[in-house]
Amino acid sequence: MSLESYMNQIGQQARAASRLLAKASTKQKNMALFAMADALEVARPRLILENAKDLESGEEKGLDAALIDRLRLDDARIDGMIEGLRQVAALPDPVGEITDMVFRPSGIQLGKMRVPLGVVGIIYESRPNVTIDAASLCLKSGNATILRGGSEAFHSNQAIAEAVSEGLKAVGLPEFAVQVLNTTDRDAVGKLITMPEFVDVIVPRGGKGLIERISKDARVPVIKHLDGNCHVYIDDEADLEKAFNIALNAKTRRYGVCNAMESLLIHQSVVGDILPRLVAAYTEKGVELVGCEASQAFSSAIGRATEEDWFTEYLAPKLSVKVVSDIDEAIAHINQYGSHHSDAIVSCNYSKTRAFMTEVDSSSVMVNASTAFADGFEYGLGAEIGISTDKIHARGPVGLIGLTSQKYIVLGDGHTRDN
Amino acid sequence: MSLESYMNQIGQQARAASRLLAKASTKQKNMALFAMADALEVARPRLILENAKDLESGEEKGLDAALIDRLRLDDARIDGMIEGLRQVAALPDPVGEITDMVFRPSGIQLGKMRVPLGVVGIIYESRPNVTIDAASLCLKSGNATILRGGSEAFHSNQAIAEAVSEGLKAVGLPEFAVQVLNTTDRDAVGKLITMPEFVDVIVPRGGKGLIERISKDARVPVIKHLDGNCHVYIDDEADLEKAFNIALNAKTRRYGVCNAMESLLIHQSVVGDILPRLVAAYTEKGVELVGCEASQAFSSAIGRATEEDWFTEYLAPKLSVKVVSDIDEAIAHINQYGSHHSDAIVSCNYSKTRAFMTEVDSSSVMVNASTAFADGFEYGLGAEIGISTDKIHARGPVGLIGLTSQKYIVLGDGHTRDN
Repeated sequence: MSLESYMNQIGQQARAASRLLAKASTKQKNMALFAMADALEVARPRLILENAKDLESGEEKGLDAALIDRLRLDDARIDGMIEGLRQVAALPDPVGEITDMVFRPSGIQLGKMRVPLGVVGIIYESRPNVTIDAASLCLKSGNATILRGGSEAFHSNQAIAEAVSEGLKAVGLPEFAVQVLNTTDRDAVGKLITMPEFVDVIVPRGGKGLIERISKDARVPVIKHLDGNCHVYIDDEADLEKAFNIALNAKTRRYGVCNAMESLLIHQSVVGDILPRLVAAYTEKGVELVGCEASQAFSSAIGRATEEDWFTEYLAPKLSVKVVSDIDEAIAHINQYGSHHSDAIVSCNYSKTRAFMTEVDSSSVMVNASTAFADGFEYGLGAEIGISTDKIHARGPVGLIGLTSQKYIVLGDGHTRDN
Repeated sequence: MSLESYMNQIGQQARAASRLLAKASTKQKNMALFAMADALEVARPRLILENAKDLESGEEKGLDAALIDRLRLDDARIDGMIEGLRQVAALPDPVGEITDMVFRPSGIQLGKMRVPLGVVGIIYESRPNVTIDAASLCLKSGNATILRGGSEAFHSNQAIAEAVSEGLKAVGLPEFAVQVLNTTDRDAVGKLITMPEFVDVIVPRGGKGLIERISKDARVPVIKHLDGNCHVYIDDEADLEKAFNIALNAKTRRYGVCNAMESLLIHQSVVGDILPRLVAAYTEKGVELVGCEASQAFSSAIGRATEEDWFTEYLAPKLSVKVVSDIDEAIAHINQYGSHHSDAIVSCNYSKTRAFMTEVDSSSVMVNASTAFADGFEYGLGAEIGISTDKIHARGPVGLIGLTSQKYIVLGDGHTRDN
């Protein structure tokens, strides 16, 4: 079968399955999630065996150690996938919720009903557990899924797909509700993102390069996460003890995550009181510092930041530091150089926190809290399919609600429109 | 100045204006709308003069009568624009609304704040009043706008733009909050839809050809309205008097509108009781009928429908008719051939109306009501920027809420994240 025919078949199967999933009961979907968990448990030895093939060929190809680590499925990670399925089953089902029901002057009753998006295409890189995360969230929200994992995880993903398929069949849901592409042909991605008749939305998970390529070529909407160039602004009216803790937590809790602070802005009136203490703490943790000229006056440990630094998401123990003259300069800097992900102010002043909250154009705005809270679990969404840096449809962590839409429902009793 | 530089300048100005608009008060935005209404009133003679230039060159170019009519600005239409501005001022301001505020286990308080999208690009064809409709809705929702009207309405749109600009300046809002492109260069559209750094969303208004071209080439999200191939399904348990009225209203109220019924589905058990009566009524109004073989048995006035007919939005006094064996066939037909716009069931059976509401995948689903109600004014949104046939972000009539998004806000008091 040609790739074109194969992808069309996958698409048709997904579309047909999505119609059945849209009317599946919450109980049926939860039973499927539990059955998938059971099937993964049974498949555990096979998963580890198939994963070993991927690890072996990854090492042959010379993948770096970090990639190999992300690729690895061990007992703890399989436990994590199983636990994740059970957690998604425990989440409330958003589908079918009817809200905003009102009578209109014409006599019709108008409301909104929450409905699945239809078919979700997921394109991701090496971590095989994304297969389960994504499939479970899409299933619970009534969407059919087409998954395309990285070629380096091919055997692992196929083995996981079999367990998923068993779980679906065990409860009488269509086995094509979740399909993992059975090809490593790169053109499959190109086809997947350009068949709006079968796919309603694409969620790419991976590096910025992957996401930019997909956004550029897609003919279907893309829920995307680009970079997380997050800021903490320490105001002159900040509680400096809180500011110290937040600035340290936001940078050093974990370095490789999108909600880590990459740039610290400090009001000129308090920079002398807090920066030297922060520099000492960062240096002790091995964080490299670059900053504006004014910041350099406070520590020889601070290198000079370039214009490029202000735009950069380091995802590493590195931080840029800038001294600002007031909150307006801080807000303007964040809106210009930031990535509209998550940004925080530390201040005791009511008016300034209010202005920051209103004017900073980011998917999460924090007041006196660490940017590290920008996360689906912390927000109570359960798992997240990703964190959106888009403004359309969904901003910030995207969970079950972000995988649904709302349609209007109109209830009449023979109503017609006069004019 | 090159087109590239011109468009970049427009984009930068819009982005800067959007930052100021995002924090403008409701009062200030309403004052601007009233000032724009006053400026239009003053500019009335000039609008009619400039419009005459467009009408003249339109006639020289041989535009058809319908287009010339849509292009015309007379006193009644100027009254309509002025009234529209005042109506938008009277609508509630969605910006700043905070909802879903909860304490999380970590101690942070989490909520959502409604915020403008930023910069909205509107691309539209001949009707100059769209300039005011779109500008007023975007302004009220705190968005900057870049408008690109049809070249045939160039002089009219420029004159309207001047009045808009006067209104903005009169209340101290940035004049670049609304910009009408001062060029008829077709490449301006291509540039407008590919500058995500300056434009957050594109709303095309016009024929399907325009919208498909824009969707294909855009590098920014598009809120689009494709066709309205709307259905009414008359169930075997329908009240036939209500069914008759709804089927007549949905087709014949107006022919050229997207919420008009284009295809009528009738359950085989009642087709003999209602179709002949409907055929007589349609024929009297000059509606051409095509149908399936079964339907043709009931009237010689029904021609034979082709497969293509089931997909077709006639926007004309023409209707396709199909006899179905049950509600499942009706739902499957609508989901397969329809355009996911607005579809209605007429039935007194509870279970069937419930199934139709859940399973029909359309932006508006009507029960015992005419598809003609699918409209921003009827839904109480005030004006509408368009009707979305997308699933992502906004479905159905798009008003002020559809021009906004929500960001997360996190309130802590020195909170950091442990793990």
